[in-house]
Amino acid sequence: MANPKKAIVFVANGTEEMEAVITIDVLRRAGIEVQVLGVEVESGPVTCSRNVQIVPDAYLSDDTGRIASYDAVIVPGGALGATTLSQNGQVKSILADFYAQHKVVASICAGTLAIKSAGIQTKSAELPCATSHPSVRDQLENDFAYKEDRVVVDRNLVTSRGPGTTFEFALKIVELLVGADKAREVAGPMVLNFDV
Amino acid sequence: MANPKKAIVFVANGTEEMEAVITIDVLRRAGIEVQVLGVEVESGPVTCSRNVQIVPDAYLSDDTGRIASYDAVIVPGGALGATTLSQNGQVKSILADFYAQHKVVASICAGTLAIKSAGIQTKSAELPCATSHPSVRDQLENDFAYKEDRVVVDRNLVTSRGPGTTFEFALKIVELLVGADKAREVAGPMVLNFDV
Ligand SMILES: [Cu+]
Repeated sequence: MANPKKAIVFVANGTEEMEAVITIDVLRRAGIEVQVLGVEVESGPVTCSRNVQIVPDAYLSDDTGRIASYDAVIVPGGALGATTLSQNGQVKSILADFYAQHKVVASICAGTLAIKSAGIQTKSAELPCATSHPSVRDQLENDFAYKEDRVVVDRNLVTSRGPGTTFEFALKIVELLVGADKAREVAGPMVLNFDV
Repeated sequence: MANPKKAIVFVANGTEEMEAVITIDVLRRAGIEVQVLGVEVESGPVTCSRNVQIVPDAYLSDDTGRIASYDAVIVPGGALGATTLSQNGQVKSILADFYAQHKVVASICAGTLAIKSAGIQTKSAELPCATSHPSVRDQLENDFAYKEDRVVVDRNLVTSRGPGTTFEFALKIVELLVGADKAREVAGPMVLNFDV
């Protein structure tokens, strides 16, 4: 592809490593350029929720000039990581800006808390449809038209529920960025237990 | 638990990061102590198949004294990573020793090539049942009673097929090491699309 689509995946200490890694890997299988951006860490790896150590491609504090060139931004869960991402001012403004620009804004699990703290639910007349991990539903159900589907798409907002829904979540982002044919093409060799 | 079960997960450059990370994370959710051991890398991160960089907990070359204390050994896939693991003499002897000691020996995707190169198929009168990623079936079907199930258990050998079968694979290892109740307990919060 002459101009591949580009996506940011935020990671912080406490990010759920399955949610981050499945999303990054599936998007890269689809030819999407993924930038893994460390938040509130300046160098070296982040320590994820189950102690997997992942070295980001770059750090948010160093990368702000290029943010506008991306087509999608993705917030993984993990309670502690999602709290950090929800409270970071740069992350909140990137999420709000991308949403306003009709770029794909996506979150999974507790990551949907960052969608709320970015104020995305206040940007339209109707509450947007969204989902999250069941454990944080009570922090979100008054702010969104809360759904229990495994992946929820409302305009450019994509939300999902937990580690076990991440393949569906990532393939939906692939579909939105590069099309359903590509989503089916990358699904085949992964030996999934559902149809795409 | 006074004496938690302990498992080794090998990683090398080119390891499939979803297969490694889902396995590590699910086992840790079940209270199993997981040691992520880098093979043919001496320091720093391994660069996985889709360029996710994971820092091992230790390196095989430094950790040999403690290997005998583990209860299970797991080989993830990823073509390049599995080739490295298949050809490493220490890995081969650990796999053969653990199998002979009736400890859990598990592989997924192209990782089953390391089971073959360790000679496990020669250790019993009947060919053991096994599976792998479909793309390496032709390298395995004369050496094993090849199956196409998503997870295959034959005595202490557990094999599986690809990124999309890793949750089932990891939960089967949890069941074998710490029981079906624990597997069900950790499955719930992950929001899977199958019953455990
Ligand atoms: Cu979570």
